[in-house]
Amino acid sequence: MDYSDIIYEVEDSAAVITLNRPARLNAWTGTMEREVRDALNRSDRDARVRGIIITGAGRGFCAGADMAMLNTIADAGGNEGRAIDPLASAPGLEANYHQAFSFPLATQKPLIAAVNGAAAGVGLILALYCDLRFASENGRFGTAFSPLGLIAEHGISWLLPRYVGTGNALDLLYSARVIDAPEALSMGLVQRVYPQDELLAASKAYIGSLERSSPKAMAVTKRLVYDAHFQDLATAVRSANDAMAERLKDPQFKEGLNAFAEKRAPQWAGLGE
Amino acid sequence: MDYSDIIYEVEDSAAVITLNRPARLNAWTGTMEREVRDALNRSDRDARVRGIIITGAGRGFCAGADMAMLNTIADAGGNEGRAIDPLASAPGLEANYHQAFSFPLATQKPLIAAVNGAAAGVGLILALYCDLRFASENGRFGTAFSPLGLIAEHGISWLLPRYVGTGNALDLLYSARVIDAPEALSMGLVQRVYPQDELLAASKAYIGSLERSSPKAMAVTKRLVYDAHFQDLATAVRSANDAMAERLKDPQFKEGLNAFAEKRAPQWAGLGE
Amino acid sequence: MDYSDIIYEVEDSAAVITLNRPARLNAWTGTMEREVRDALNRSDRDARVRGIIITGAGRGFCAGADMAMLNTIADAGGNEGRAIDPLASAPGLEANYHQAFSFPLATQKPLIAAVNGAAAGVGLILALYCDLRFASENGRFGTAFSPLGLIAEHGISWLLPRYVGTGNALDLLYSARVIDAPEALSMGLVQRVYPQDELLAASKAYIGSLERSSPKAMAVTKRLVYDAHFQDLATAVRSANDAMAERLKDPQFKEGLNAFAEKRAPQWAGLGE
Repeated sequence: MDYSDIIYEVEDSAAVITLNRPARLNAWTGTMEREVRDALNRSDRDARVRGIIITGAGRGFCAGADMAMLNTIADAGGNEGRAIDPLASAPGLEANYHQAFSFPLATQKPLIAAVNGAAAGVGLILALYCDLRFASENGRFGTAFSPLGLIAEHGISWLLPRYVGTGNALDLLYSARVIDAPEALSMGLVQRVYPQDELLAASKAYIGSLERSSPKAMAVTKRLVYDAHFQDLATAVRSANDAMAERLKDPQFKEGLNAFAEKRAPQWAGLGE
Repeated sequence: MDYSDIIYEVEDSAAVITLNRPARLNAWTGTMEREVRDALNRSDRDARVRGIIITGAGRGFCAGADMAMLNTIADAGGNEGRAIDPLASAPGLEANYHQAFSFPLATQKPLIAAVNGAAAGVGLILALYCDLRFASENGRFGTAFSPLGLIAEHGISWLLPRYVGTGNALDLLYSARVIDAPEALSMGLVQRVYPQDELLAASKAYIGSLERSSPKAMAVTKRLVYDAHFQDLATAVRSANDAMAERLKDPQFKEGLNAFAEKRAPQWAGLGE
Repeated sequence: MDYSDIIYEVEDSAAVITLNRPARLNAWTGTMEREVRDALNRSDRDARVRGIIITGAGRGFCAGADMAMLNTIADAGGNEGRAIDPLASAPGLEANYHQAFSFPLATQKPLIAAVNGAAAGVGLILALYCDLRFASENGRFGTAFSPLGLIAEHGISWLLPRYVGTGNALDLLYSARVIDAPEALSMGLVQRVYPQDELLAASKAYIGSLERSSPKAMAVTKRLVYDAHFQDLATAVRSANDAMAERLKDPQFKEGLNAFAEKRAPQWAGLGE
């Protein structure tokens, strides 16, 4: 697949997906959505890739839905609404991972949003569906919906209260005020803030630092953690027990113990067992 | 409805509900509960009102249930318990919005607790059921239950762990210790702290700053956010998709886009469509 | 029951359970698990005990599962996995309190993890199942699983995102990096940090400070708070209303009111009514 709205590169163990419409602050399009999905799947299948970074070209991260697309929808009386709402049907827990923007949760590798500038509207939503959010000092965050007459869409009603608390979530959704990286850090919206010219290197270094961690164990853990958001404790423990029974039988477990005893880095076999 | 235990005023776009039993630090009574409910409904129906503020007259916000009422209950062997527990029955998600103290969640407009002094017991619970908590430097917060032999009532068992974390929630409920506004801020219990004589003005200014935000979009968003606390992600996305399809058809959406393009404030039609 | 891997002491109103394999940084064994369970039950039944502290002997809190035990499991091809996974079956909400490591949630008294050194792997999990986490400046926290090829086990997939946020939880689980006490405090993982030689005294003083609080009310509140993690708001309110109706009938309620009016400490009858 050739990409027009993103750039895909693998450097060392990190796949970097760069949203690449810098003249539009990387505004989100249907093409970009298809390409990001494709690149995430490609990263999962690429044995060289330990973790994935999504960032933006130029000054912005992603300024939200492309305004031309929104105007087309408005002019058509909302009839194009489904174009950005390809709601998938799936049973049980799986349904949580097959919504229009929730697909990043289903990837099997650690996924970092490296927020290098404005993350607004669906741009903010994309960042929330990544596992970790690292921001540069130029990172800016805004919901953008209410001044357009729009609402907390694509699961931000669910994610934002769990990530920054209900009070902060309603503040950001009501006011659509734009917050900077330090305020985002104090709210828990981002995990780290770096100088602008260090953000990408720091994100890659984080992926690099996961060298000791079993890729299979990280993939299982990622799914267990997100599943647990939809489960009671007993069910989450049972799922973990089942997964643990498999891990204890895997030769990778003995390799981990040996590496620990020998004070060396473990050698992992990748996602396969 | 004439009010005896509260004052109701609308100034500019803000409705201000002032708990008004200052000699008793605005201790909560059955009358006060009926009047606050009535004032919230009135605010929702008043087209001038963009957002609502609950605050206290004098030194306190609300010191909790009136001690005379509690003594009457104790002397009656607990038989008056239902007087402060008018449990409503309602099906499904709606039941969450029809409990004795949860009715503020069902209002359709942004709702700020402007905590000007002690918020204790049900006074703290009232503040937790508001969307945002702004405190003055005189704000004080305590659960008050355990030294009376009482328990985490009226949903504080559910709200407090979600708003400040389980550890802080149990600390506050076990010890009933009183925390000041900076500690409440660091726990995430309040969103802002202001000097005492700026609290009400700042709260009104916040409501004023929502001028750009569509009242209809804020009302839908408020419901989506609280509903999402009781839903898995897939269900929350589906609810948002349904709401979004309606918003995209609404002429207010085009008005929002036009205002954005023309760099002017949008003109909203209020809660009606 | 004589203990080999722990020490059990009651001083004033605090029961102190000290994990006591200091040469192994108090690594967790099947014996230790049985003894901690026994000691928690004993604390609950001991009328002198108002609250419980779990801490570690020597330099560590609990360094995780004993490596010899893990090597035995690996050498047996994972067949001994159930030895550390005695999954209990129980209906409904109760199941949440009967998992291999979740039993501390079922104790009826305030329970503090006093983390005096490294809390890693199941040592961290044990601390998470306590109500409050107080750390010394020597406190260290790490998940430890992924470098062993292991996953987010025993409910940490459920607990950690709720206690420190999903982003921080995945960071700690992916990287297994070790964080110090100040970072744990800023994440919300611990509630307090003390100098090393003040940790135990401060934990005991906290238990002492609960003198005013009704033991019965704290026990009911503890269960309501954890139950509420698995309930919607309406169900949590109904449970609290039922519990409140009982509390209002209890003579302890009148004692609490009288003590308040007389500005004296209430006299509580313990967990019994």
